[in-house]
Amino acid sequence: MKAVVHEHQTGMDGLHYRSMEQMEPKEGEVKVKLKTAGLNHRDLFLLERHKPTDPPIILGSDGAGIVEIAGQGVENVKIGDEVIINPSIGWQYNSEAPPEGFNVLGYPEHGTFAEFIIISADNVESKPEYLSWEEAGVLSLAALTAYRALFTRGHLRAGTTVLIPGIGSGVATFLLQFAKAAGATVYVTSRSKDKCENALELGADKAIDSNEDWNKQLNNEKMDLVIECVGAATFNKSLDQVRRGGTVVTFGASAGDRVEIDIRKFFYGQYNLLGTTMGSTEEYREMLKFIQKHHIKPVLDQIYPIEQFKEGFYRMEKGAQLGKIGFHINT
Amino acid sequence: MKAVVHEHQTGMDGLHYRSMEQMEPKEGEVKVKLKTAGLNHRDLFLLERHKPTDPPIILGSDGAGIVEIAGQGVENVKIGDEVIINPSIGWQYNSEAPPEGFNVLGYPEHGTFAEFIIISADNVESKPEYLSWEEAGVLSLAALTAYRALFTRGHLRAGTTVLIPGIGSGVATFLLQFAKAAGATVYVTSRSKDKCENALELGADKAIDSNEDWNKQLNNEKMDLVIECVGAATFNKSLDQVRRGGTVVTFGASAGDRVEIDIRKFFYGQYNLLGTTMGSTEEYREMLKFIQKHHIKPVLDQIYPIEQFKEGFYRMEKGAQLGKIGFHINT
Repeated sequence: MKAVVHEHQTGMDGLHYRSMEQMEPKEGEVKVKLKTAGLNHRDLFLLERHKPTDPPIILGSDGAGIVEIAGQGVENVKIGDEVIINPSIGWQYNSEAPPEGFNVLGYPEHGTFAEFIIISADNVESKPEYLSWEEAGVLSLAALTAYRALFTRGHLRAGTTVLIPGIGSGVATFLLQFAKAAGATVYVTSRSKDKCENALELGADKAIDSNEDWNKQLNNEKMDLVIECVGAATFNKSLDQVRRGGTVVTFGASAGDRVEIDIRKFFYGQYNLLGTTMGSTEEYREMLKFIQKHHIKPVLDQIYPIEQFKEGFYRMEKGAQLGKIGFHINT
Repeated sequence: MKAVVHEHQTGMDGLHYRSMEQMEPKEGEVKVKLKTAGLNHRDLFLLERHKPTDPPIILGSDGAGIVEIAGQGVENVKIGDEVIINPSIGWQYNSEAPPEGFNVLGYPEHGTFAEFIIISADNVESKPEYLSWEEAGVLSLAALTAYRALFTRGHLRAGTTVLIPGIGSGVATFLLQFAKAAGATVYVTSRSKDKCENALELGADKAIDSNEDWNKQLNNEKMDLVIECVGAATFNKSLDQVRRGGTVVTFGASAGDRVEIDIRKFFYGQYNLLGTTMGSTEEYREMLKFIQKHHIKPVLDQIYPIEQFKEGFYRMEKGAQLGKIGFHINT
C-alpha cells in the first residue's frame, strides 16, 4: 500500500509518498480502507520531533474509511461498515490526566496518511451519517481537543461568555461552533479580516482584530472563559481579558511556549489557568453525540489528493487556512 | 485612645504609637475594646503602599476583645461579649471572586492596632472559648486565607498529598495544621532547619530543605496539590512538584511576582493554577467551625506589648518567625 512516510531527514524533506508493507489485523483489531484523512498541527511538529535515526513513520491522526477486515473477537464493527477513527490511544475513561502509555495516533504508531490502517477496534466508531467522507476524515483530533477544552475543562454552558483568540485553525473553528451550539456568547480574534468575516458567518457574536487593542474593541467586557490556543503571542492579552474569578484554558503554543505572568495580579484576580490536550475515548464518544445532536459539520478549508500532501503541509505552515485541511485517499 | 498610626512617611519611619480621636459606633456597629492584635505581611506591604500624603491610618487586620458599646439595631452581640474580629469587609457570601468594594480591615478602614475599634457588627464573632486572647487575636486573616486556599480552591480532603513551600509564616503554619486535621499527607519546605523541625512537631509528614533538590528529597513523589505562597523564588519548583492533572493554588508573592512558565509543559501536564486571596464572611464562619471541631490553635511566635510594636515589624521583615506575631493591648 502507499503512504505518506517521514524518514531519514527532519522537516518537510523527510516526507515521501511511497510503498509500505501491508499488515494484517490481530485479535481485537480492524483493517480500515481509508477514504479521507485530516492534517493537524501535530503532523507539522512531528517533522521536527521525529528524528532521522528513528524508524520510518506514517503520519496522520484523523481518518475515515470502510472496514476491510475485522480481527478475531471484534464485535462493535463488521466488514463493510463506514467508520471514523478516534486517535486517542490508551486513554479509555475520563480522568484528570491521561494514564501512562497514552499516545496520539500517528506517532509512535502508524497513522492515517495511508491506503490502509490497522487499529484497535476500540478506536473506530460508526461514521455519523450526515457527515461526508471529507467531513468525517478531518474531524477527530481537533474536535476532541475542542470538546475537552470547552466542556470538561472550561465548564462552558448556555450564557457563558467565551473568547477564542486566533480563529482560523481547525480546532478554533470547532471551538466556535461547539460554543455557539451550547448557547454561549462567542468572541474571536484574528489578524486576518477574511477570517474575522468567516467567523461572523459561522456565528461568532463579535470578531476583533488581534493586532489592535482588545479591551477597546470589546468595550472593556471581561470574559467568563478564554480558550488560549495560540501561545506566548497572545497569552497575556488573553489573561487580561478574563473577569475576576474567570478561567483561561490553554492547549496551544505554536506562537511560543514561554510566558511571563504577574502572579500578584493573577491571585488578586482569583483567576484559573487550566491546561488541556486531546481527550479520552469517553470524551470522544460524548463529542460524537454532541455534534450529531447539533448537526455540526467541520469547516473544510481544502481537501487535496493524498499524492499532493505537500500542498496541505505548506498551507498549514503558512497558517493560511480557515478550518480543516484534508486528503482524499482511495478515490 | 492610643494606636499604631502610619503617616507622613513611607516605611517603618512613618509608624507612631500616638493618641487618636475616639469615635462612637453608629447603627449596626460595635465598639470593641481590644485585648490582642495580630501582625500580617499585609501590614508590612502597607508601609510602602500607604503614601505620605494619604490620611493617617491605624494598621492591623487581626484582633480580639470585649464589646464596649453596641450601636442601635445590633443583635448578634451585646456589651461584655468576648469577640474575635473578621477582617473581610464587603464580601459576605461565597463567590468566585470578591464583589466590588471588597476591602481588608486595616486600610483603607482603621484597623486593630489600637485600644478600641469601631466596626460593623457583621464583622465580630464570638471568640472560640478554647482560644486564649493571644491565640484569638492573631488568627483571622491568615487562617481565613489558608482555609480558602486549601478547601474552597484546592478541594483538599482526606488522602490528598499536599506540599507547602516556605513553612514558617502564620498562613503556612495554618495550612499545615488545617491540612493535617483534614486527613491529608503534608510535606513542607524551608531554608531553616529549625523551621523544618518545628513543622515535623506540628505534624508534617516530611520537611525538606528548600535549597536542595526537592524531587530527590521527596523521592520523586508528585503532589495532588501545592499551596504556593512564596512567589517567584519557588514558583517553578512548586509547579514541577505537581502530579499530572494536579493543582497549584497561589496567593503569595513576597519573593517576587514575575514568573516565567513553560505553557507547553503546563498543558501537557493538564495542570491547574488557581489564584486566591483572603475569603468571604461565609468562609470565615466555616473556618471558625472547622478550627473548633479540630481544636486547632494558632502557633504563637512572639507576642509584644503594643508599645513595642516595632519589634514585631522587624521580626517579620527578617522572616525569623514560626507562626504568628501579635501584640498585647489594654493589659
